[in-house]
Amino acid sequence: MRKKIVVIGGGTGTFTILSGLKKYPNLDLSVIVSMMDDGGSNRVIRDEFGLLPTSDLRQCMVALASSDSDQTLRKLFTYRYDQGVGISGMTFGNLFMAALTDIYGGDQKKAIEETSEILGVKGKIIPVTFEKTNLVATYENGRQVLGEHAIDEPNSQTGKFKITKLEIIPKAKVNKDALSAITNADLIVLGPGDFFTSILPNLVVDGIGLEIKKSKARVVFVANLMTKFGQTAGFKAGDFISEVEKYLSGRNLDYCILNKSNHFSKTMLSKYKEENAEPVKDDLKDYKGKTKIVRKSVISNKIYQKPKGDILERSLIRHDSDKLAKAVVELL
Amino acid sequence: MRKKIVVIGGGTGTFTILSGLKKYPNLDLSVIVSMMDDGGSNRVIRDEFGLLPTSDLRQCMVALASSDSDQTLRKLFTYRYDQGVGISGMTFGNLFMAALTDIYGGDQKKAIEETSEILGVKGKIIPVTFEKTNLVATYENGRQVLGEHAIDEPNSQTGKFKITKLEIIPKAKVNKDALSAITNADLIVLGPGDFFTSILPNLVVDGIGLEIKKSKARVVFVANLMTKFGQTAGFKAGDFISEVEKYLSGRNLDYCILNKSNHFSKTMLSKYKEENAEPVKDDLKDYKGKTKIVRKSVISNKIYQKPKGDILERSLIRHDSDKLAKAVVELL
Repeated sequence: MRKKIVVIGGGTGTFTILSGLKKYPNLDLSVIVSMMDDGGSNRVIRDEFGLLPTSDLRQCMVALASSDSDQTLRKLFTYRYDQGVGISGMTFGNLFMAALTDIYGGDQKKAIEETSEILGVKGKIIPVTFEKTNLVATYENGRQVLGEHAIDEPNSQTGKFKITKLEIIPKAKVNKDALSAITNADLIVLGPGDFFTSILPNLVVDGIGLEIKKSKARVVFVANLMTKFGQTAGFKAGDFISEVEKYLSGRNLDYCILNKSNHFSKTMLSKYKEENAEPVKDDLKDYKGKTKIVRKSVISNKIYQKPKGDILERSLIRHDSDKLAKAVVELL
Repeated sequence: MRKKIVVIGGGTGTFTILSGLKKYPNLDLSVIVSMMDDGGSNRVIRDEFGLLPTSDLRQCMVALASSDSDQTLRKLFTYRYDQGVGISGMTFGNLFMAALTDIYGGDQKKAIEETSEILGVKGKIIPVTFEKTNLVATYENGRQVLGEHAIDEPNSQTGKFKITKLEIIPKAKVNKDALSAITNADLIVLGPGDFFTSILPNLVVDGIGLEIKKSKARVVFVANLMTKFGQTAGFKAGDFISEVEKYLSGRNLDYCILNKSNHFSKTMLSKYKEENAEPVKDDLKDYKGKTKIVRKSVISNKIYQKPKGDILERSLIRHDSDKLAKAVVELL
């Protein structure tokens, strides 16, 4: 029987790992995707179309799209407009799904299924919830910030502080498909991705943590490569593990994949320094906890450039699809 | 060898006839499409994206799309957004082609080919020109109006007057594919469609009229069912024939398809009357000219409703796809 892997996340890191895992023909892949994004193209989708955000879903679809599917359609799905009042900054994929949802009378689930079929998606893409909700982060200085976009763009009041609590308002009903994917999984992969805005937003939906606790699957966390100002400033590897476990209803992680060697160029590090970010330090040499630390070289040697029309900052130091997928598959 | 039919037009009428002709498997279809539309979604495409208008192309694509192609994609291509600042009123198909053209470095020809392939288009869709140009109409009272959209929405200065001259500014280079389609055709079909804003805009591009004159193909004109305020107020069937022949470099039409019986409901006629339009009168009972008048019942019994999000007025009395296609094919 094919091994079932469930990836939990959303965003670029999820795209990366799915692109790698897709190459293993005998895996049964699912991805649970956070639905709290409210920046850029998603703000328009949420506020003006009254729909759930679709950028993270779209990225997953492109990652899992069959290479037999129409290449033009796959190109279009990653396309972002840079012209047109009200259109510039929107992604084609978001507009595609907004139109399709309207055609299906507001049924986003149906729209996701249809889009997946058109792109020949290998695997199942599961929004963590179909209800509209917002992230709320509480910082160690007591301040609160509402909305993923605001958390992602910290100011002087929040930037240097750690987030101590993440929740959603209003409470949102978990998508039952997410629960059954977790129940039936052989391996649950948390990450990689922005910790408080891509990974944890899934775990704060009622039911997800408990289902992971109950699942027979082993749980692996892909540790972040870099800290992030306003979210995980000063976090070391151990901080990530203890933080993620807070949201797992008392369950421990089975594995944590840590990048082994950090030979980053000075130019790159100085770029990150401008954003008050630095490589995550491995403080687990003498770690005696229950999680097995898997040290592998999993970073990419490619240079990432900001796509045209994209106004958000993207990280430059990233996981490598193939190396990371291999490290994960070896845990099966 | 398959018979070659070239339809010349753009807009709803062209959609209608193509939808009917598509059902004849042994026809080799081409459609030459006017590129002067500057209203609604096309204004954005022209002014904000700097591209040629695509609504008429898009309609042709949907008409000729293979019924084997993905049904969802075909639905999407006829979809018009009714939400989103700057997006409401846009058609999905226009945004699709704008994105694709940008992906192909501004090459709209390539974008048309790719889109045709995705939709499994049966036939060749040929923009009359790839150069940006505008319609200019001169009325019998001497006034001039610039732009298709303005011609389509007449005011008191133009509404009750006939257009005496149509031209384009600036001059635009004809698409060579249009010329060769005309040269190789067995039958050239002008219309149906708005006379001055869908049919003639093709004929005013330098080279088209002359090529039609030289072609061995027979030329058929599908006469309009209704007059149109600000364009063809008071036109009778004979006026259409003499007017279209002005643009054919001295060639006569071989056929004119006239609707035989006009049993329109009072409700419908009064709706048209509100727009100062009336059924085109058949004044050709004793006609002795060179054109063979083909009287057939070619109107549709369906009631047309305005699609959601569409702010333009659409005509209610329309040709029937199948009846019209049959009438045309019988001329081969």
